Amino acid sequence: MPDLRKDPIVGRWVIISTDRAKRPTDFARENVKLKGGFCPFCYGNESKTPPEIQAYRPGSNGGPASQRDTPGWTVRVVPNKFPALGIEGNLDREGEGLFDRMNGVGAHEVIIETPEHRSTLATMSEKQIEDVLWAFRDRMLDLKNDKRFRYILIFKNHGEAAGASLEHPHSQLIALPIVPKRVREEVDSSRHYYFDKERCIFCDMIRQELESGVRVIGQTDLFVTLAPYAPRFPFEMWILPKQHASSFENNQTPVYAGLAKVLKDNLARLDAVLDRPAYNLMIHTSPIGEESSDHYHWHIEIIPKLTKVAGFEWGTGFYICPTPPEESARFLREAHVDASPSR
Amino acid sequence: MPDLRKDPIVGRWVIISTDRAKRPTDFARENVKLKGGFCPFCYGNESKTPPEIQAYRPGSNGGPASQRDTPGWTVRVVPNKFPALGIEGNLDREGEGLFDRMNGVGAHEVIIETPEHRSTLATMSEKQIEDVLWAFRDRMLDLKNDKRFRYILIFKNHGEAAGASLEHPHSQLIALPIVPKRVREEVDSSRHYYFDKERCIFCDMIRQELESGVRVIGQTDLFVTLAPYAPRFPFEMWILPKQHASSFENNQTPVYAGLAKVLKDNLARLDAVLDRPAYNLMIHTSPIGEESSDHYHWHIEIIPKLTKVAGFEWGTGFYICPTPPEESARFLREAHVDASPSR
Repeated sequence: MPDLRKDPIVGRWVIISTDRAKRPTDFARENVKLKGGFCPFCYGNESKTPPEIQAYRPGSNGGPASQRDTPGWTVRVVPNKFPALGIEGNLDREGEGLFDRMNGVGAHEVIIETPEHRSTLATMSEKQIEDVLWAFRDRMLDLKNDKRFRYILIFKNHGEAAGASLEHPHSQLIALPIVPKRVREEVDSSRHYYFDKERCIFCDMIRQELESGVRVIGQTDLFVTLAPYAPRFPFEMWILPKQHASSFENNQTPVYAGLAKVLKDNLARLDAVLDRPAYNLMIHTSPIGEESSDHYHWHIEIIPKLTKVAGFEWGTGFYICPTPPEESARFLREAHVDASPSR
Repeated sequence: MPDLRKDPIVGRWVIISTDRAKRPTDFARENVKLKGGFCPFCYGNESKTPPEIQAYRPGSNGGPASQRDTPGWTVRVVPNKFPALGIEGNLDREGEGLFDRMNGVGAHEVIIETPEHRSTLATMSEKQIEDVLWAFRDRMLDLKNDKRFRYILIFKNHGEAAGASLEHPHSQLIALPIVPKRVREEVDSSRHYYFDKERCIFCDMIRQELESGVRVIGQTDLFVTLAPYAPRFPFEMWILPKQHASSFENNQTPVYAGLAKVLKDNLARLDAVLDRPAYNLMIHTSPIGEESSDHYHWHIEIIPKLTKVAGFEWGTGFYICPTPPEESARFLREAHVDASPSR
């Protein structure tokens, strides 16, 4: 008998196949493979992107830092060449009968994670990943000075099947003039829970999951990685800070160092179990102006691209997940990866 | 400057690219092509599906109807061989700390739309499509006798890219023991609008859209097809009855005949403009027990599979649509198809 489960945070129900659960090898999928060709994100091609917004340029052998828009950087942030939103202009909100619209004002940036084309977050050094996380933070803090913005999403599409159009390792940032519905639901629902119980729902979930252990993929002193109770997708992973914190960008140095370690380990496990799948990664953090709260708990969601979203999902917002999270967690927990953090 | 638009019914914002809008030929996509091979839905292979639940068997040349689970049918309904939900058993609702679950009780059926393997809803006869619609209705009315169910979704995945695993023309039905969140939102939001204004929000939208005409793809005396104001996807289409009606299954004969005509025409336009794209089609109708209402308006949503849902969409519930609906509507309206209903 399949299982119907409800996500306690957003109230979304999912169907979990428990009878003929799919194992990792049962998924027909496109693994992430490099095709090569010209890459605008590699050293020497800096002029092929819009001028950089920010870059870390350590200088080699104690020498001076390199010039902007030239090689020598370790992480480089540029505007998206084909932005979904325009950075200039006013919002010009207006109604048109029943309908509401405003100008598509926002920021759309690309964080080039490393000069090494063939690297991935699962294979690059922890130090390099930590630098990427610092770049995320720097860009968020900077963009929050722009009073037009209400929410900043940092996300990564890894592999063509997950929507990546360039293979060089990169993440993206979109700053929006409104708080999206999906984010609003998550924040409002956790606020509601807090008002009722004086506890953070994520903290409660972490406590319950660490006690039972069946959906724990791994943990360090700072972070826990879970297969969520009601996943939308097989092998979905959530990385949560163990100690309550409501925003990604307001943390101390050890948190970013700790997260780099965990991200590398978790993504290496995903690669090992599913043979380098395409995936989407999203940082869920508080909306601008609501950064400090007792009710919201920032976290990272990672969804490997193994199944197709079809008519049933579009029609109901209900998901069919062919692998129980207890099994995903076991496969990921037991995967052999090198230099794994203690669990 | 891109446009930010809000869907007036569910409150979802989307980004519409107005600057470098994609034309139909700009989408790299997998067109629907037949591959052949063994087909369990063709005549003579009736034993390869679970025993039929229902079939229309007119009898040939005035002769007697054929036997069940043999050839001679025009539309045939069978249980899904790999059902997402189990038809037997009790719900057994239970909590587990924070979490809620119940048994995955429900129906999962396949409506085989025609014996003709190579046919599609865009090419089969209007009479045949009307029969398919009657089969949808028959199955809904029958399943509504089962007191465990709260919602019935009828949907179609056309083409591999849209999640279809078999190419023979078929639709699916899933009966659920709960009203899904996405449906609940749509119904509750339209109820809220009605309480405020004493008018159906869909009826208001139809009036406004027919007046402006820019997003109208076509209309007959009974139906209007729109490119919605805030589409999630390029070339998204909504088919709505012009006269207020809250459920698909409670209509008079002319409505199904009229819908068959419109469906065939609209899908032929989609095929002409986008060269036979994969698509998902969903019937949005009232939950069980709420069939007659002044606030909800049943309709059909069709989404061609042209773009990938990626990290931004998963992280925000916000969609980026690269083609303004005014342009989709114009392309679809101006497409040349044979035997189009009057517009």
